[in-house]
Amino acid sequence: MSSDLVRPRAVVCLSGGMDSCVCATLAARDFDVFAVHFSYGQRTEAREQWSAEEVARITGAQELMHLKIDLFRMIGGSALTDEGIAVPSAKDDESEMAGGSLRTGHQVPVTYVPFRNAHFLSAAVSWAEVLGARTIFIGAVEQDSSGYPDCRPAYYDAFNELIRTGTKDGDIRVETPLIAMRKSEIVRLGVELGAPFHVSWSCYASESEACGVCESCVLRLRAFREAGAVDPIPYIQR
Amino acid sequence: MSSDLVRPRAVVCLSGGMDSCVCATLAARDFDVFAVHFSYGQRTEAREQWSAEEVARITGAQELMHLKIDLFRMIGGSALTDEGIAVPSAKDDESEMAGGSLRTGHQVPVTYVPFRNAHFLSAAVSWAEVLGARTIFIGAVEQDSSGYPDCRPAYYDAFNELIRTGTKDGDIRVETPLIAMRKSEIVRLGVELGAPFHVSWSCYASESEACGVCESCVLRLRAFREAGAVDPIPYIQR
Repeated sequence: MSSDLVRPRAVVCLSGGMDSCVCATLAARDFDVFAVHFSYGQRTEAREQWSAEEVARITGAQELMHLKIDLFRMIGGSALTDEGIAVPSAKDDESEMAGGSLRTGHQVPVTYVPFRNAHFLSAAVSWAEVLGARTIFIGAVEQDSSGYPDCRPAYYDAFNELIRTGTKDGDIRVETPLIAMRKSEIVRLGVELGAPFHVSWSCYASESEACGVCESCVLRLRAFREAGAVDPIPYIQR
Repeated sequence: MSSDLVRPRAVVCLSGGMDSCVCATLAARDFDVFAVHFSYGQRTEAREQWSAEEVARITGAQELMHLKIDLFRMIGGSALTDEGIAVPSAKDDESEMAGGSLRTGHQVPVTYVPFRNAHFLSAAVSWAEVLGARTIFIGAVEQDSSGYPDCRPAYYDAFNELIRTGTKDGDIRVETPLIAMRKSEIVRLGVELGAPFHVSWSCYASESEACGVCESCVLRLRAFREAGAVDPIPYIQR
């Protein structure tokens, strides 16, 4: 076993949330990771940036590129970036919480940020072309999530076709290792891999202590509970 | 004929070059235009921004959104954004200039900016979702151009599939009305429509007077010559 084996490079989209935390930990087993994080005017921007930096550091990423996107604040249209639209409490949707997802059917929540993941993936692809990386990881989750259209397998298939047709060599692929997993399975995998959940952040609404009531907190808390694990981040006591 | 007929909205990607100038003029006949322009660290950033503003004003756009993308300066890899890579003179490729294009085969030039158009289109789609626009125009040209992978019809087909799978309603389409035209045909169309070529800018290398020798200048000059028209922008006298 030579110590100078060259590992392949991968670009990892790192929001700092629980899913990307596990995704980055997973990618770091087999790849030299170049992580990319985005501040796009989301309410919890500063906390998420700190989380991404800590996850990158702890998982041994080669680099963390931090990018700012002005667009979403300029155009509004999402509760995450538009102060005029409140972040809903998951209680507002209690009747829909019986199944795996907080949403049923094709209803897209007000926390949807229009076509957001395309911005993240485009940056990852551009960087991968320059780095010579052929793999991009993103911790998108379809089931057991908020029902965003850009978190479904068909979307990633389409993105891979876009890369095939629109890049110099056409040989970069987006991988979504968590997409078919339940959130509780993601927690179990993260615990097994030693993912640094203690520095991750999922809350849509607040930055020092997680609110515990937004859709993202409720999904996270339920995932840890179902996995029989303790969520190590601080929550507001209610 | 009522004067209060509501026209549909369209988002137009407006670089300020000759193709986007014609594309915006064309779109303005049938749509209320919301133009978007990008400063991405290209050498002629300031001149292009002025051109986009003037084209938007003259063609009667409702709005021009100006977005900055830091990424390309950060990652380098293109002669347009990386000071360490020279903008080549078209003379370097003279043997390849016999046909319609400056390039033959699948050679991608050093002026290729990695996966650039995906960033532009992603912003256009996000804005279109908020505006309720169902049409996006981009002045991409395949034939008679530099051979960039993200200027081919297959790329736009893939992007439209991405929109179908990854947006709230899935009903936005990217239109590329110039993609199959020769550059000289685009000049003729622009003259016919009264496109404001005098404020457009195509040069990759300089901002006050066009260099006349980079690939983009050579393609532009040849297009005007073949169309029997006079290019109204200033060129460095050699």
